[in-house]
Amino acid sequence: MTSNDTPSLRERVRIVIFEAETPAGALFDVALIIAILLSVAAVMLDTVPSVHARYGATLYVAEWVFTAFFLIEYLVRLWCIREPRAYALSFFGIVDLACILPSFIGLLWPGAQNLLVIRILRVLRVFRVLRMVRYVSEANLLLDALRASARKIIVFVSTVLTLVVIFGSLMYLIEGSTNEGFSSIPRSVYWAVTTLSTVGYGDITPITPIGKTMATIVMVLGYGIIAVPTGIITLEMNEAHKRAANTRTCAECSAEGHSQEATFCWRCGAHLYRKPTDRVEPGLIELPKGD
Amino acid sequence: MTSNDTPSLRERVRIVIFEAETPAGALFDVALIIAILLSVAAVMLDTVPSVHARYGATLYVAEWVFTAFFLIEYLVRLWCIREPRAYALSFFGIVDLACILPSFIGLLWPGAQNLLVIRILRVLRVFRVLRMVRYVSEANLLLDALRASARKIIVFVSTVLTLVVIFGSLMYLIEGSTNEGFSSIPRSVYWAVTTLSTVGYGDITPITPIGKTMATIVMVLGYGIIAVPTGIITLEMNEAHKRAANTRTCAECSAEGHSQEATFCWRCGAHLYRKPTDRVEPGLIELPKGD
Amino acid sequence: MTSNDTPSLRERVRIVIFEAETPAGALFDVALIIAILLSVAAVMLDTVPSVHARYGATLYVAEWVFTAFFLIEYLVRLWCIREPRAYALSFFGIVDLACILPSFIGLLWPGAQNLLVIRILRVLRVFRVLRMVRYVSEANLLLDALRASARKIIVFVSTVLTLVVIFGSLMYLIEGSTNEGFSSIPRSVYWAVTTLSTVGYGDITPITPIGKTMATIVMVLGYGIIAVPTGIITLEMNEAHKRAANTRTCAECSAEGHSQEATFCWRCGAHLYRKPTDRVEPGLIELPKGD
Amino acid sequence: MTSNDTPSLRERVRIVIFEAETPAGALFDVALIIAILLSVAAVMLDTVPSVHARYGATLYVAEWVFTAFFLIEYLVRLWCIREPRAYALSFFGIVDLACILPSFIGLLWPGAQNLLVIRILRVLRVFRVLRMVRYVSEANLLLDALRASARKIIVFVSTVLTLVVIFGSLMYLIEGSTNEGFSSIPRSVYWAVTTLSTVGYGDITPITPIGKTMATIVMVLGYGIIAVPTGIITLEMNEAHKRAANTRTCAECSAEGHSQEATFCWRCGAHLYRKPTDRVEPGLIELPKGD
Repeated sequence: MTSNDTPSLRERVRIVIFEAETPAGALFDVALIIAILLSVAAVMLDTVPSVHARYGATLYVAEWVFTAFFLIEYLVRLWCIREPRAYALSFFGIVDLACILPSFIGLLWPGAQNLLVIRILRVLRVFRVLRMVRYVSEANLLLDALRASARKIIVFVSTVLTLVVIFGSLMYLIEGSTNEGFSSIPRSVYWAVTTLSTVGYGDITPITPIGKTMATIVMVLGYGIIAVPTGIITLEMNEAHKRAANTRTCAECSAEGHSQEATFCWRCGAHLYRKPTDRVEPGLIELPKGD
Repeated sequence: MTSNDTPSLRERVRIVIFEAETPAGALFDVALIIAILLSVAAVMLDTVPSVHARYGATLYVAEWVFTAFFLIEYLVRLWCIREPRAYALSFFGIVDLACILPSFIGLLWPGAQNLLVIRILRVLRVFRVLRMVRYVSEANLLLDALRASARKIIVFVSTVLTLVVIFGSLMYLIEGSTNEGFSSIPRSVYWAVTTLSTVGYGDITPITPIGKTMATIVMVLGYGIIAVPTGIITLEMNEAHKRAANTRTCAECSAEGHSQEATFCWRCGAHLYRKPTDRVEPGLIELPKGD
Repeated sequence: MTSNDTPSLRERVRIVIFEAETPAGALFDVALIIAILLSVAAVMLDTVPSVHARYGATLYVAEWVFTAFFLIEYLVRLWCIREPRAYALSFFGIVDLACILPSFIGLLWPGAQNLLVIRILRVLRVFRVLRMVRYVSEANLLLDALRASARKIIVFVSTVLTLVVIFGSLMYLIEGSTNEGFSSIPRSVYWAVTTLSTVGYGDITPITPIGKTMATIVMVLGYGIIAVPTGIITLEMNEAHKRAANTRTCAECSAEGHSQEATFCWRCGAHLYRKPTDRVEPGLIELPKGD
Repeated sequence: MTSNDTPSLRERVRIVIFEAETPAGALFDVALIIAILLSVAAVMLDTVPSVHARYGATLYVAEWVFTAFFLIEYLVRLWCIREPRAYALSFFGIVDLACILPSFIGLLWPGAQNLLVIRILRVLRVFRVLRMVRYVSEANLLLDALRASARKIIVFVSTVLTLVVIFGSLMYLIEGSTNEGFSSIPRSVYWAVTTLSTVGYGDITPITPIGKTMATIVMVLGYGIIAVPTGIITLEMNEAHKRAANTRTCAECSAEGHSQEATFCWRCGAHLYRKPTDRVEPGLIELPKGD
């Protein structure tokens, strides 16, 4: 990654900050994540009245120390990267800036400091540190499964929302006049979501026999419906896993994704084992030479 | 879909209203869905006392505007379709009518307007708009899985209902005399459903040690039983997925199980589309004729 | 099932009552199930104070009518079956008797009538009626999956119970002195079950920061642990399904359970397709005749 | 397992205490587990005020009897095992000691007795008793699945924790000023965990319309996210199952994937156990040598 000549200071700083493969880079990332977690904890604790009363001043100082550290880090990043513009407009570039600004906005509009918890988003950087131990490929498997099932999930969510509006309205008609909890359709829909998702706060509950019967139906339905996203994710995860496992590549056209038993490439039709080597997997069907 | 001569106005209107493949048709469907969502939101918000007090008059006008729009749309549909009777008696035909009637019934019997939320059912039309991007096949996969597992689900639901009646009755015997929440078997059964489905409102909870022990058993049982519908759906979804994938057969060796993008048979290497037709799916790699 | 000569009355009654294949038998079973459901509904409704006040007398009569009907049915069953003893000691024989006795015991010890809800168990007979449409094989699939995973479930449940005792005790140590809800270990264990199973009544909730942190851990754990029974059931259901699907039988030794791609019997080694017929599945590997 | 000469007393005691294969050893383990469960029950019940008032003295004696029994057992274990040091530092060695100490510490610091519930950990020994019936291999399957999916679970849990902090903070900003339940970010995060895990105590619930809308989003998200660990565990359990099943290879054609009971290769028909050894599994059908 570096040329033969000694890299410049800027290049060396870039490697430490932006890459996790070197010991210094990994150390920097770990230190950064600890700083992020501490700063998020400070923001969170500062909102607890009793803690604020006793340690408010300390936490105020801590917040500005963290802000100064993150500001310097942001400026160094901008300085050492080859394309500062691309970084500044990237997802992490925007998050990095958004983690500093609220402190300053808070000087003008008190309360904005609470937005500092979005610093937690930077913790997603942790995946980069863990890249060396294949964590990112795991995350990719999860993301692949989610992406592949996005269409199914949209169909599922819109069906659930339709159900929830209908059941909420029915409960409004049934209990609206007698039960304060169902005094409007939006409240009833909120109840239906609470019930169908099996969360069940209990802040709104049916009181009439018909309402309870209705609630029973929604609960049994929710109990069954929860199986659908699980089925979707399991299916897609399985598919993503299979795709990841089938790493045999066609020597002719470089196509991947051959099934375990395939003898010929599905894209170009070439024999996958024309020059059989001992890497030929057991269980392969040997075909006549006339092919 | 249309003959060579210029289609009549009625035919052109029909294509816009009933089909989503043309730009005008897609636009119409999107506009319709927005109108549906707005009208449902209006009905829902009108039931919130504070909103009704301030915007009641506006929402009343909005309701009649939407009703007029949907009435005109319904009449146009009846006019332009070839078989108005079949449409009027179809699922969407009945839903379309049911979305208009409550406004008029509401003139005679106040309160019927709340039934207008069934307009949300029309949103299921959204799947037609999305047809172009294969959303419907996804919905079909879900429906196939549900249909294929219908028998298993009936067996499962009747077992759950039996359990719920038995546990509810036991709790009535245990806590009925000391706990207001279990004062009758139907109420206890309602509690059992709440618990077994892991919703857990907390409006009825056991108070005696024996009752709590019983509740613990029901909870652990519910925790395990929730796995059954998930297993069923996952299994059937997997089967439906396999069926959807494995429909192409090699004309040479009758091998099945080709992946969606395959051009050549994985067993014998024969071209799967030797006589290319226009049914060849987009994304297929066109190969030289010499094959 | 019947010999050439006309069957005796006793035999004909037996076929109607004990078998569901004939129209009369199916009709009898359906009528019986309706009677069971009605009688259970009557027992349940009689415990609702307002219903009891108004329809108590009617329900009392109904109960005795149902009891008389079930008593006669029980006696007829004993009379017409070939081995009354075996029936009387079978699962359904005991259930049938247990559905009648509480009415009579109730004459001596009021309250025993509530036990009549065990009549619902007789509804399991419904599976016999549905046998004709393969419902029982579905139930068997579920039961097979449960039985096959019994060992895994025992390991899982004992691990969960250990976790629940440990977390309950920890919460007792943490909140026991300040929170009435955690005033003893059994109560705390009850809370832990409520939380781990994601039921979450909310009748007992942590109030101290440490207690809430602890509860957070239990919740995240429960969220993950719920995946285990699902995984177990899905796996076993899949296995049971595969076993059910592989119905090819070896012509030599009648062994079943051959995998989809098998050419030779796994038990006796005979060629499964020695005399190829047109039932040979496409995709089968044709072997040299020398075998 | 023992040599020809009569084993010493120490050796015989060791076999009884540390091994479960002999009848005496199995009996000892079962007795031990009953003692453990009773002692845990005694500790738990002693924390219930009403029980303590009536049976406090009895339970105090019982505790010391159990402690004496476990102390003697611990000393005998140390005496009879070949390497007492290795045992004392092993997982069960430490647990065994930790099950005795709290009684003595309790003499100095009252309240330490409650730590005696960690005796429940010793119940994990139950898996050793059940080893004979393959329970441990089941536990290993579960552990394998968990271990293999550890990386995916870390990625999943850190994503969930990030979501929970962000949603908690948003709710603090939305409802913090009007709702006592969201008076600090940590409390709001606790609410977010309660909701996302579908536990839903209901001790903290949103009251403003925006807050309820937010809660609805969290619930729907939680409903979908719960599918992810299930998918992970199902996938890994499936893999672990396959690994356990597919370990036998045909010596002739190297085919894999023979079922547990297979005697002949499904591909080439060769005998899988041509040179039968004593590793042949019980339940195998012995075939004539002429094969």
